[in-house]
Amino acid sequence: MSTALFLPIFEDGAPLYQQLYHHIASAIQTGQLEPGTKLPSKRRLCALTGVSMSTVESAYSLLAAEGYVLTKPRSGYIIADLLPLVPPSAPDIPQPPAEPTPWAYDCSTSAVDTSVFPFSSWARITKEAVYENPGLLQRGHQQGDLPMRGALAGLLGQYRGVCCSPEQIVVGAGADLLLSLLLQLLPNHQVVALEDPGYPAAYATVTRHGRTPAPIPVDEQGVSPEALAASGAGLAYVTPSHQFPLGVTMPAGRRSRLLHWAAAAPDRWLIEDDYDSEFRYSSRPIPSMQGLDLGGRVVYMGTFSRSIAPAIRVAYMILPPALLERYHSTFPHGACTVSRFEQESLRRFLIQGLYGRHLRRTGNLYRRKCALFSQALSQIPDVTLTGQEAGLHFLLTLPRMSEQELVERAAAQSVRVYPLSQFCHTAPPLPSTVVLGFAGLTEQELTQTAARLAKAWT
Amino acid sequence: MSTALFLPIFEDGAPLYQQLYHHIASAIQTGQLEPGTKLPSKRRLCALTGVSMSTVESAYSLLAAEGYVLTKPRSGYIIADLLPLVPPSAPDIPQPPAEPTPWAYDCSTSAVDTSVFPFSSWARITKEAVYENPGLLQRGHQQGDLPMRGALAGLLGQYRGVCCSPEQIVVGAGADLLLSLLLQLLPNHQVVALEDPGYPAAYATVTRHGRTPAPIPVDEQGVSPEALAASGAGLAYVTPSHQFPLGVTMPAGRRSRLLHWAAAAPDRWLIEDDYDSEFRYSSRPIPSMQGLDLGGRVVYMGTFSRSIAPAIRVAYMILPPALLERYHSTFPHGACTVSRFEQESLRRFLIQGLYGRHLRRTGNLYRRKCALFSQALSQIPDVTLTGQEAGLHFLLTLPRMSEQELVERAAAQSVRVYPLSQFCHTAPPLPSTVVLGFAGLTEQELTQTAARLAKAWT
Repeated sequence: MSTALFLPIFEDGAPLYQQLYHHIASAIQTGQLEPGTKLPSKRRLCALTGVSMSTVESAYSLLAAEGYVLTKPRSGYIIADLLPLVPPSAPDIPQPPAEPTPWAYDCSTSAVDTSVFPFSSWARITKEAVYENPGLLQRGHQQGDLPMRGALAGLLGQYRGVCCSPEQIVVGAGADLLLSLLLQLLPNHQVVALEDPGYPAAYATVTRHGRTPAPIPVDEQGVSPEALAASGAGLAYVTPSHQFPLGVTMPAGRRSRLLHWAAAAPDRWLIEDDYDSEFRYSSRPIPSMQGLDLGGRVVYMGTFSRSIAPAIRVAYMILPPALLERYHSTFPHGACTVSRFEQESLRRFLIQGLYGRHLRRTGNLYRRKCALFSQALSQIPDVTLTGQEAGLHFLLTLPRMSEQELVERAAAQSVRVYPLSQFCHTAPPLPSTVVLGFAGLTEQELTQTAARLAKAWT
Repeated sequence: MSTALFLPIFEDGAPLYQQLYHHIASAIQTGQLEPGTKLPSKRRLCALTGVSMSTVESAYSLLAAEGYVLTKPRSGYIIADLLPLVPPSAPDIPQPPAEPTPWAYDCSTSAVDTSVFPFSSWARITKEAVYENPGLLQRGHQQGDLPMRGALAGLLGQYRGVCCSPEQIVVGAGADLLLSLLLQLLPNHQVVALEDPGYPAAYATVTRHGRTPAPIPVDEQGVSPEALAASGAGLAYVTPSHQFPLGVTMPAGRRSRLLHWAAAAPDRWLIEDDYDSEFRYSSRPIPSMQGLDLGGRVVYMGTFSRSIAPAIRVAYMILPPALLERYHSTFPHGACTVSRFEQESLRRFLIQGLYGRHLRRTGNLYRRKCALFSQALSQIPDVTLTGQEAGLHFLLTLPRMSEQELVERAAAQSVRVYPLSQFCHTAPPLPSTVVLGFAGLTEQELTQTAARLAKAWT
């Protein structure tokens, strides 16, 4: 072994022992140092390189621990016989996803208004949650901490007519994640009924779990019970409060027919995603289907992503007793996916009345925005609006143009509107219809957006 | 319709309109009010019940919105023709899971020491993260916010020899969740190689995704490359830094053989769970396998659950470029499962040097605890300890007794120790061996635990 080859050139930055380690390890990997040969003694290497004994010792013990060298009593450090490493192939530099076009106004359905978020209360609560609860650092209950679930059960009973005990609640970091858990809980349901048009993330989650989505058409009362029965599915995902994207509210008669469907055979389940139920403008909120379910076949799901903020990753599902037993045996261990500090912050937000206040404030704001935007858009000749009784979006139909024309002409004014057909699977979309979300734009922006759309479509 | 039947009895608590609504809705559901009959006029109901017009109006509009009644011009409110609801069947009251035996000392492998957690720094950082970043309320990047991923890439390069760009990192609420995402990303891998003995949650996750675990035996260098090659699996989950539960550190030679295995056929992947790499007592930490991987076949995984606290639900994986492309097409939309406030708190914790300080402090603490507990236990005649060079647990073997005897005699002293066989699948467990975690007990408790075990096993 040539010692000239061996001497490393030290650079600023990484600790010397690491540089020495890397230098020797890479010489071994590339075969410059042959198996069976000896490394110089530690003392000799100190002299050769000028570094301290402890630096050499650290590097050598790392090489030995890593298996690059073997230590033999009285013979020092011997290069180990490694398989040559995989020949280098420069990895492609990952391309960041294409930048979205910078729209002047984006009528996205997933944005919310965060202008009235109570920052100071949330910051205070968060700090208290950390300071006052050192025990929260340890692993908590897999379903979420019980005090938080108790507060949630109370809230859902009061606001949504949901009937449950805190033991039935499973808290998780997002509705898509909870749907994934449910699919793992119900492995025999190969076919999953989904609304058509419907929520794209639900289709994607079902497909990623190797299941087959069965698209069920939606009429003016919601999902069709006949089509659901004909699909052969035993598991159905529905949004009765404010169907996404059509905005239909399912009346009681249709709900009872779905509950009948579920009760008519063993192992049938309805997932009620109570999406947008918090925001209802033309009448009081409608109680949940879960509250009407006497047969224990409804899994109720909700989230704080829209009612507080998308950054708050807290969703929940309420399992009927029969599924709760399965849950305990299918998920015997594991941790809840929501930080316990955040669970505690949310609990305080609920029980201190701050959530109710925030809901009233944002509800009024959205009611005003919805009315303003609807009013301005209805001035455009031949326009029909639907689904604006609730939620953060509605539909606009303008029979004079094709859907594509509506989207492209809006884009020419730098306004992003969403074609209804992108949410449709086998059902033919309502013609000439786009989906408009209004929550993420200010009132002034909504007025400007409506003016641009009037120009685009006239 | 008899009005006597109709009159509700109001109670304190729920708003009057809700009580009125429930009273009428349940009369319709039970058939007391027949389809086609009329409700009393609003004015008449006010007179009958003594409540205000606005209360009656709210209740009626809710009944109409719900579909219980139909409004007909000039004829008032007509009871709708509903299918009778499902007959009531009282749901079983869910039983809370059985209370665990209250152990005097629990040598759990999942507990950590939170006594040195920097509460005041974390509380300050958390508060700043909320106050200074209103933009964080909106939905962030699905992989986690880029500044946080940048800080993480720097940390992993420095501490673990991981070589990646921030674009390759996917942040998620726990390692089990990330494994679930990976399985969704690799739908064609029906068989998944797992270490035997190995991490139970990985077995459970693989099984819940409908895949078949292939248990691969672990020897004194880690997982067996021959058995891996023979298994037919194309996806393998390994813990080279500190094998769970055996505590083996995989030497470089074995690592290079695994990398060779992965490179020898298309679509082969190694998941490197760098579990417990933060805590190494007998030599410097060993760089990750990911840093040696020139073929782009390693998915690196790590978590802050153990190095900070189990309550902090932040884990991460680093996808090689080829899988990153698949990830973008398989997960086109969705939100990161970690709260953006928590991501920002963690970023500050990293870049302000608080994480490094915390690691050094806990590392010293664990080193002391490990030495103290090992020293005390090695006084027991015939005891052999293994795997105590790193991590938060080690193995104890005592050939004089069966594994079951070891566990039962410890239990009689109210000390919980974990039988190695509970982590074993097809491989025969090392006889007479138990797994002992020490992180969750204080030094005083460890001394007392060792004393009780000495009594139990002598």
